[in-house]
Amino acid sequence: MSMRVGIVGISGFGGGEAMRLIANHPHFDLVYAAGEGSAGSRLLDRFPGVPQKLAGLVIEKWDPASLPKLDVLFASLPTGASAEALARVSKDIKIVDIGGDHRYAEGWTYGLADIWPDQIKGQARIANPGCFPAATLTALAPLLVNNLIEPGNIVIDAKTGVSGAGRGGADSKFGYAESNENLQPYGLLKHVHMPEMAKTIARLGGASVAGLVFTPHLVPMTRGVLVTIYCRGSATTDQCLDAARRFYFERAFVRVTDNPPQTKWATGSNLAFVSYAADPARNLVIAMGVVDNLGKGAAGQALQNANLICGLPETAGLDGAPVWP
Amino acid sequence: MSMRVGIVGISGFGGGEAMRLIANHPHFDLVYAAGEGSAGSRLLDRFPGVPQKLAGLVIEKWDPASLPKLDVLFASLPTGASAEALARVSKDIKIVDIGGDHRYAEGWTYGLADIWPDQIKGQARIANPGCFPAATLTALAPLLVNNLIEPGNIVIDAKTGVSGAGRGGADSKFGYAESNENLQPYGLLKHVHMPEMAKTIARLGGASVAGLVFTPHLVPMTRGVLVTIYCRGSATTDQCLDAARRFYFERAFVRVTDNPPQTKWATGSNLAFVSYAADPARNLVIAMGVVDNLGKGAAGQALQNANLICGLPETAGLDGAPVWP
Amino acid sequence: MSMRVGIVGISGFGGGEAMRLIANHPHFDLVYAAGEGSAGSRLLDRFPGVPQKLAGLVIEKWDPASLPKLDVLFASLPTGASAEALARVSKDIKIVDIGGDHRYAEGWTYGLADIWPDQIKGQARIANPGCFPAATLTALAPLLVNNLIEPGNIVIDAKTGVSGAGRGGADSKFGYAESNENLQPYGLLKHVHMPEMAKTIARLGGASVAGLVFTPHLVPMTRGVLVTIYCRGSATTDQCLDAARRFYFERAFVRVTDNPPQTKWATGSNLAFVSYAADPARNLVIAMGVVDNLGKGAAGQALQNANLICGLPETAGLDGAPVWP
Amino acid sequence: MSMRVGIVGISGFGGGEAMRLIANHPHFDLVYAAGEGSAGSRLLDRFPGVPQKLAGLVIEKWDPASLPKLDVLFASLPTGASAEALARVSKDIKIVDIGGDHRYAEGWTYGLADIWPDQIKGQARIANPGCFPAATLTALAPLLVNNLIEPGNIVIDAKTGVSGAGRGGADSKFGYAESNENLQPYGLLKHVHMPEMAKTIARLGGASVAGLVFTPHLVPMTRGVLVTIYCRGSATTDQCLDAARRFYFERAFVRVTDNPPQTKWATGSNLAFVSYAADPARNLVIAMGVVDNLGKGAAGQALQNANLICGLPETAGLDGAPVWP
Repeated sequence: MSMRVGIVGISGFGGGEAMRLIANHPHFDLVYAAGEGSAGSRLLDRFPGVPQKLAGLVIEKWDPASLPKLDVLFASLPTGASAEALARVSKDIKIVDIGGDHRYAEGWTYGLADIWPDQIKGQARIANPGCFPAATLTALAPLLVNNLIEPGNIVIDAKTGVSGAGRGGADSKFGYAESNENLQPYGLLKHVHMPEMAKTIARLGGASVAGLVFTPHLVPMTRGVLVTIYCRGSATTDQCLDAARRFYFERAFVRVTDNPPQTKWATGSNLAFVSYAADPARNLVIAMGVVDNLGKGAAGQALQNANLICGLPETAGLDGAPVWP
Repeated sequence: MSMRVGIVGISGFGGGEAMRLIANHPHFDLVYAAGEGSAGSRLLDRFPGVPQKLAGLVIEKWDPASLPKLDVLFASLPTGASAEALARVSKDIKIVDIGGDHRYAEGWTYGLADIWPDQIKGQARIANPGCFPAATLTALAPLLVNNLIEPGNIVIDAKTGVSGAGRGGADSKFGYAESNENLQPYGLLKHVHMPEMAKTIARLGGASVAGLVFTPHLVPMTRGVLVTIYCRGSATTDQCLDAARRFYFERAFVRVTDNPPQTKWATGSNLAFVSYAADPARNLVIAMGVVDNLGKGAAGQALQNANLICGLPETAGLDGAPVWP
Repeated sequence: MSMRVGIVGISGFGGGEAMRLIANHPHFDLVYAAGEGSAGSRLLDRFPGVPQKLAGLVIEKWDPASLPKLDVLFASLPTGASAEALARVSKDIKIVDIGGDHRYAEGWTYGLADIWPDQIKGQARIANPGCFPAATLTALAPLLVNNLIEPGNIVIDAKTGVSGAGRGGADSKFGYAESNENLQPYGLLKHVHMPEMAKTIARLGGASVAGLVFTPHLVPMTRGVLVTIYCRGSATTDQCLDAARRFYFERAFVRVTDNPPQTKWATGSNLAFVSYAADPARNLVIAMGVVDNLGKGAAGQALQNANLICGLPETAGLDGAPVWP
Repeated sequence: MSMRVGIVGISGFGGGEAMRLIANHPHFDLVYAAGEGSAGSRLLDRFPGVPQKLAGLVIEKWDPASLPKLDVLFASLPTGASAEALARVSKDIKIVDIGGDHRYAEGWTYGLADIWPDQIKGQARIANPGCFPAATLTALAPLLVNNLIEPGNIVIDAKTGVSGAGRGGADSKFGYAESNENLQPYGLLKHVHMPEMAKTIARLGGASVAGLVFTPHLVPMTRGVLVTIYCRGSATTDQCLDAARRFYFERAFVRVTDNPPQTKWATGSNLAFVSYAADPARNLVIAMGVVDNLGKGAAGQALQNANLICGLPETAGLDGAPVWP
């Protein structure tokens, strides 16, 4: 079986990773790629290592009204740029929006593919979770559904590689000399990923969430997200690990580990790693989650969602091992 | 005025940084250096860029019983290696122990030079704080002494560059290919720096501390420590900043900043940066502290302590700007 | 068609990369893995992200006399460790030796898969080229066979990421804090890769080579090799590019580019990139070659060689796009 | 003695490093700082770790016609931006131009402070060498003046950290995610530093130079330049080392080392390291030079030049040890 897929936002990091994964997918053929600055170039001009079968594909100027026949469109546009444009895409084309505009928007399903895959199957409009929410919610879900932590008392200390900030920032904050050998907190008390996390925690934990604390940090590495989450609860470490192992028993991409996970374990893959360390005497549960921000945190989960909505095995094209070292 | 100083543990990162700072000090002359593996070499053999005046100094085998006449000895030995040896050093020689064996030990003053300088002046045995405690306690002290946070409910999420782990780890955990592009939590719920932090928090906050949470992370950079500390309290951001500005009003090395501090701001210097972000509606105070783990986190504070115990200006030899970028 | 393959030296970087590529190969089943320090562990214990189908495979102690039935064995042992041991492997098992002991050894074919694939097909003992030779010889071959440069007057300035030095060096030269933010020349005038390069240049260029100059440098990055090669000849840039395009016309893994290649173009792939810049007025030809030292420089080329000796398409399992960024 | 100095281009990397060094200088007082984007800010706003004595200095808009009384002006402007503007500076103000516009320009002395310090003393207009020339010419000078190599047959393979490209490049080539884990050759056969190197080599070698080859590479590190230079000559390694030791006998900042120098040896300092490896049988001399591109390659040498033209000891303010690790 072969399906026709397209990418808009091909020149960004998320779009580029989607291209890499699609090139390795047994059922998806990339027949359309669009971008802004790169329109008119061939994929080979932008990606010197692109597989030969895709090398000659010409990047088009993005126009939602004149798309070719497609089964699935992957959209990886800057926040604010996709809401209106994607509304003009034909209903015959399924969409996975890697960007942030449709998370918890009406008519769109929030695509936590490892947490509620059954709600994704059969849908046609998927809002792909952000990288921080992907790591955070994967770590928290087993605790929340088993009432092992208080949903209203969660502190998320998040760390991301610089590719999470997107490409080519003219902002010198992301210049090599400024970011290298530097560790930078940012966006305190107001990060754009907060709402989708709060809504999902409330949904999984059965309570409204007002007190969520989230602090992102920019780490001098290209890829990787680690969240260290401080929760209140009296569960033991083993109870948390057991809850996660049961919760993810049939899920191919989530690994529950005894040791604290490292970001490099996930690099280049769609895997998520979760672990826990608890101290009932202090009413403390530490949950940890690791993803590749461009894998499970963006394009990897997007392909997983596309597999689900297309009725394919969710692991199709995604079962490669991470790159190490 | 000229004082004779020595370093034991010259080949490690802490000892090497002490050498660099002493070379630039107006009153300290390095007349003795000792090491294990490096004994018999000249400083020039180990440090190709060592200033010429020190190049020919021969590194001796460490023997506390046969030291030359010294005013101050800086000890930078692995944990466990200094307790017995330093007991054999003549009482005529003042000691600043950069290692971990004497923190809150009897007869030793815990050398938080920016927090209680008056308790350090006139002492002869100083236990230099660890790098995590230096960053953490500098950020917390103004909040604790002003009762702006609950001392029993503190969560410290700490991040350090790899030089914090010491030199030449045969442990592949610190190999370049393994550490680069990787972010690693470690030592959950049991780090060696916990006791000195808990004791100091209790002392400053006027209460015993049982619930302290501390999670260190290894970040792919050489130098730098950032702590992000989650506290409970109803103070506003401005109240916290004001408290810190008052507390550190006369201190040369602590900078209170409106924006979240970055580790690169401190690289190569003895500076500490602290900032705060609070949300009274959530009873939340986030305190942040940044130091260079080899500066304020080790050799920088050691020289500051040496200045204090020798009756010198505390800034002598330490007023250089950080290295940027 | 399914073939049974094994890896000895699974815990090293080359062995680990071979595992990653085999896991994605349509015809190779990994049924045997051996190591020294890791014997007794499951693959999952060493590689937290290993694909599920391989997770439970137990690493055995390496014993060439008691191997299971295998079609191909990939050997990735330290230099000096494989010559004797591999002699004891049954003749029924084909071997690709990623290590350095059999390059230009009797009974072994030097496996330059992009340069002389026809000499590899049907063989049973392949010595896989080193990472520097892979990059160097791929760049030089078209010039040598077309007599565009003088084979006796070649200067190779080579740069490698730190994983090229192998894993877990107790040598602090490869420690993170020592290697990061550092660039180190090493092994001047005597690198172990010299003989295989000199022999191949002589073979391709039809002349003995005495004057080869080779200078490797250690670069602060994990993966990647770039060689910048200074040759004497009167060809133009276009003549060099044309010669390379003709030479590699049917080769899937070599890309000839107008612009100087960057190491990141190859990361995680089996690709090699070559380019040229010439100035006939100065009798100068600069040839450049880029590979991933663990891809084309080790495990990638090893699988390509295995495909060739097994009669499979040379691209089987190797056509993934590089990881970017 | 106290001298009034100013910096124009304070926000760039070169200007910032000049500020750091001036802050530590015993005779220079920074009384004027100018920039474009940063005009109106205090130094503290741009450099959070700036020494307290400079913190309140307000950055002015650059106007060469309305400078305060100054003894020395350090200019660190983009190439092309200083030629006209500096012509309008009063003759009473000495200028060290860190930028590239005046190298070998009429009325300006090319400031190779370690090679011809006597030609610099007493001058009022100094063109500071570029970072690549600083490393290259320091390594080559002893060979050239002793006729140990052929001046017309020199190949320079140069490697630089990313700060050498200047600050805040909107160019994504210098973005963190694009530069990290990447090694990029650039500017083949046409780099802007070529003319000053060719002219100096001709001057030192007593012959015109047409065949110089120079290839720069961008290395994923912040600071550091290493040049590996391939020359023709029959000298032995010892003869080269001896020539360099004699040539630099009285020079404080050049270190001749038996082992190949590493960039980290120079970080944060004004040192240059040179070494040599020769093979008379192949008529080969390899010369190596290391500098910090912002030290000896920019601001360090600029201060050394300023010391020379002001009649101060050349080491004033520059004798600090490099930062390690």
